[in-house]
Amino acid sequence: MLKEAIYHRPKNNFAYAYDNETLHVVLQTAKDDLDSVALIYGDPYNCQNGHWISQTLTMEKSGSTALHDFWFVAVTPEFHRMRYGFRCSDASETLLYTERGFHQTLPSDTAFYFCFPYLNKIDVFQAPSWVKDTVWYQIFPERFANGDSSNDPERTLPWESTDPSQSNMFGGDFQGIIDRLNYLEKLGINGIYLTPIFKANSNHKYDTIDYMEIDPQFGDKETFRELVRKCHKRGIRVMLDAVFNHSGYFFEPFQDVLKNQEASKYKDWFHLWDFPIAADPTPNYDAFAFVPSMPKLNTEHPKVKKYLLDVARYWIKEFDIDGWRLDVANEVDHVFWRDFRQVVKKTKPDAYILGEIWHDSMPWLQGDQFDAVMNYPFTNAVIEFFGKHAMTASDFTNTITDVQHMYPKNVNEVAFNLLDSHDTPRILTLAEGNPERVKLMYLFQLTFTGTPCIYYGDEIGMDGGQDPGCRACMIWNEDKQDQKLFRYLRLLIRFRKSDPLVANDGDFRFLYVDEATQTIVYEKSNSERRLIFIVNNSDVETKVKMEKVFGTNHEKVKEVILSEEGSIRKKQLILSGTESLIIGPTGYKLIEQLS
Amino acid sequence: MLKEAIYHRPKNNFAYAYDNETLHVVLQTAKDDLDSVALIYGDPYNCQNGHWISQTLTMEKSGSTALHDFWFVAVTPEFHRMRYGFRCSDASETLLYTERGFHQTLPSDTAFYFCFPYLNKIDVFQAPSWVKDTVWYQIFPERFANGDSSNDPERTLPWESTDPSQSNMFGGDFQGIIDRLNYLEKLGINGIYLTPIFKANSNHKYDTIDYMEIDPQFGDKETFRELVRKCHKRGIRVMLDAVFNHSGYFFEPFQDVLKNQEASKYKDWFHLWDFPIAADPTPNYDAFAFVPSMPKLNTEHPKVKKYLLDVARYWIKEFDIDGWRLDVANEVDHVFWRDFRQVVKKTKPDAYILGEIWHDSMPWLQGDQFDAVMNYPFTNAVIEFFGKHAMTASDFTNTITDVQHMYPKNVNEVAFNLLDSHDTPRILTLAEGNPERVKLMYLFQLTFTGTPCIYYGDEIGMDGGQDPGCRACMIWNEDKQDQKLFRYLRLLIRFRKSDPLVANDGDFRFLYVDEATQTIVYEKSNSERRLIFIVNNSDVETKVKMEKVFGTNHEKVKEVILSEEGSIRKKQLILSGTESLIIGPTGYKLIEQLS
Repeated sequence: MLKEAIYHRPKNNFAYAYDNETLHVVLQTAKDDLDSVALIYGDPYNCQNGHWISQTLTMEKSGSTALHDFWFVAVTPEFHRMRYGFRCSDASETLLYTERGFHQTLPSDTAFYFCFPYLNKIDVFQAPSWVKDTVWYQIFPERFANGDSSNDPERTLPWESTDPSQSNMFGGDFQGIIDRLNYLEKLGINGIYLTPIFKANSNHKYDTIDYMEIDPQFGDKETFRELVRKCHKRGIRVMLDAVFNHSGYFFEPFQDVLKNQEASKYKDWFHLWDFPIAADPTPNYDAFAFVPSMPKLNTEHPKVKKYLLDVARYWIKEFDIDGWRLDVANEVDHVFWRDFRQVVKKTKPDAYILGEIWHDSMPWLQGDQFDAVMNYPFTNAVIEFFGKHAMTASDFTNTITDVQHMYPKNVNEVAFNLLDSHDTPRILTLAEGNPERVKLMYLFQLTFTGTPCIYYGDEIGMDGGQDPGCRACMIWNEDKQDQKLFRYLRLLIRFRKSDPLVANDGDFRFLYVDEATQTIVYEKSNSERRLIFIVNNSDVETKVKMEKVFGTNHEKVKEVILSEEGSIRKKQLILSGTESLIIGPTGYKLIEQLS
Repeated sequence: MLKEAIYHRPKNNFAYAYDNETLHVVLQTAKDDLDSVALIYGDPYNCQNGHWISQTLTMEKSGSTALHDFWFVAVTPEFHRMRYGFRCSDASETLLYTERGFHQTLPSDTAFYFCFPYLNKIDVFQAPSWVKDTVWYQIFPERFANGDSSNDPERTLPWESTDPSQSNMFGGDFQGIIDRLNYLEKLGINGIYLTPIFKANSNHKYDTIDYMEIDPQFGDKETFRELVRKCHKRGIRVMLDAVFNHSGYFFEPFQDVLKNQEASKYKDWFHLWDFPIAADPTPNYDAFAFVPSMPKLNTEHPKVKKYLLDVARYWIKEFDIDGWRLDVANEVDHVFWRDFRQVVKKTKPDAYILGEIWHDSMPWLQGDQFDAVMNYPFTNAVIEFFGKHAMTASDFTNTITDVQHMYPKNVNEVAFNLLDSHDTPRILTLAEGNPERVKLMYLFQLTFTGTPCIYYGDEIGMDGGQDPGCRACMIWNEDKQDQKLFRYLRLLIRFRKSDPLVANDGDFRFLYVDEATQTIVYEKSNSERRLIFIVNNSDVETKVKMEKVFGTNHEKVKEVILSEEGSIRKKQLILSGTESLIIGPTGYKLIEQLS
């Protein structure tokens, strides 16, 4: 037994409360090393005649990566407390694994075991219930639609008249979004994430001048209020972008520092190195990256904190927004985010808090800070595999299995699964211009655990490279839109909404991966049904033996057909393990089976 | 390379801020698998011509267990941000290990690397600075000294007249402690931890009736104030026991529930299952363990929380206590403890918060909850090895190395290292009545990282089994005290105070372990000096070859002699690697060497 590879540590993704009654327990072992794992568990205080009373539950292999297997079990301890260990078996031996290591026999002293001390309800990770059924749509307001030319900035260029640059302006605004709500409702999304809308000079508005004011080029507060109200009427939530890591250069407190230097009453609002403070040639203050126009805010300072928490409260309270996306969230202190959560949830208990973190984010997802993070580890794998064909099928399933086991299940269910954003090239470009690859990306995104986010314009086949290329004007001329892609995505969204298994009521699991044909098979299932997705990620037709999916039995199943015309049909089939299904190049088939 | 055993995850004990400038990074690998590990690190935004600029630091093996090696490095990133990976080498290959797994060559995209986003000062774990220089002394007030017979409870028995039972009383009180402060000062301790002192019926007072009142058998508030004041005058801190997981049966709100049942305004203060609430035959409410007289408090309820936080504040504010020890701390919710910390630190910024947790406690030691926990994993190992001779030298060093690597170094420096308590048998009993073994336990306890705690009476050779045996009356008759043990411990405490290496300015490391002779060699060192402890834990004399400690060179060293008479002497020696030191049975030698 490869004992060195066995890992477990209570809390985080290894032992956590899934709900008020249920604990999830996960064990990591070396890949293909163990034949079976069982959880030995019991109440810490339940002893009879000096012997601890324990029970046994078989654990299930919930996934495998290149190096590891993960074993899973859900358990509902009667008194909300648990001591536990693992009975690990391979062909030659069975060992007990506890907090104190490996043993030949079950230790009788509960002090040896792992401890989940007490399931306190208030500690259960809990995102707003609406989030897991949300399909997000990200809008870069300057580039979505110009609905009111009266607020266009001076240098506004005609819509689509040229390529986007770091500095040009096209006049997109709130009225434009309001005018296009029919379009968004038709697509089927029910959450809008707006990149920053507060007063700022740039077209992206990440260089805030005033967090309490709308940038006039987008409209005024009344128009914004109307936007939120009209979204809500259609069941669409609205999330804003909170750029709290740094301000803009023209933020009044920073201007005061530049003017009054050491005498500035705002000098503690930033991380200043020495005086005189200057942006050129290189800033002598902490900044986002090394960008002089984005001085890092000192979020530890009580006045800065109060100001930003007032901002967080104000836009929820006054405009009824539904969530905050937090820019560069991991560079701001944890203490700030804990207080931020208190303020936000007190103002609107079901508001959503989404952190921008590109890396492993467990420390922010323990229930006290964020509801979710932007799931870039998911993004990377999908882009590399489906988009660029730069990752093998096994590497893809290994990576996704890792992503799945990085966090608790209730965290995964509200993960913000994006494929691209204003910070990356667009998916069509990443997919080398091939819309069929984009379709598979959408298929995987819309059927994976978590909540998908569509970047504006991707759905009608816009392309574009790294910023500023990915920030072009939305194409509203239907002749220039990829209508087939739009209809495909709309149908996928409808399918996701129509079948709870597709969203977050089903457990995701890979069933089979074929390296030679770049085919992957995965399922979403619950105790009653399974939906099986057979996906051919190669450019040639492939045959998939049903044996890999069903075993050798004959199985009555249904094929679920999402047709180009927009219908969802189910066709009875009897499949046997000896048969094969033919999957077209860059195509998929979808089978439904009763469990 | 055993890739399956390599583990790292940022924050917690693997990558953390040690102080405002320094990050510590730790990598776990399989034992004896790698020849060298280096940290590759750089600022995430420091690129030249599209290439990330990284630096390399050699990592040092900081310890080994039965299964794993741990590699350590301290690093001070200029802009407080870091992306990093590990260059792992064995005899046959070198691989780069990042957040995305193993690579043959250094990835150029910083997104691959592990991320320590930003060292925010406010997130740095910080216990009060006085703690790491404190030697604690635990007092069970009913049994330490009776200084005022006027407050004796009715059934008080003459001091030492019989064995302690679950219910008998001997009249110990605050005046008794005040009267014995000379004794405590002579011993050299500078922190007193008192088990509960609030109004309660039992002799242990863990069944609180009123958290705002002193139990009259201990004295009144004035006497307690005097006790704290007199301790402070002598440089002794005072810590109280907060029993917030559960109340006593006679706590007024619980009595109200029993009386008014569903109509009680306190019914949400507890975890009640159904009505009518009754303690017999088994309680139909959550309790500590299944003890009917200790109903679990609902610390999620705002009124309960307010009440308990008022209690926490009151005793600090009104009586200037220096810390709270939290009973059954891990069964109370994290949200409560986070707010508790806010209240305590706001009331007295350098107050100490110590949780009673017997297991791995990382989730409570992230800087937002406790300053320390009772270090039972340390306790167990010391008892089993030195006390019972029931653990081999290798198992001992492996376990202690695990304990060392469980938490960040700044957490370890304030770990509450106890050998026994009112909840365990006394060390002399655990050591099968052999005071020489107790001496080695004290040696290890007083020289290990963290802060030691002496359980009252152990220092003069009291014995006693599991509760109630361990709660006997303190023996004040000097003829019945083990005076030699007292003097030995006093000298050790003096040694610890006189040499900063012995306390927490030195890094602890095992140098050598000999399974055949049950000998261990460890050091405390800094960049200038090493103190080397050679400990023979067997009942026979042993020889230790200096080669194991120094290599084969001749070395000028000093032997540090803590004499029975109470002096600390240093004797010049020249040792060569070919020589051996003779260590008496259950004895030790101590060598000082310049680095």
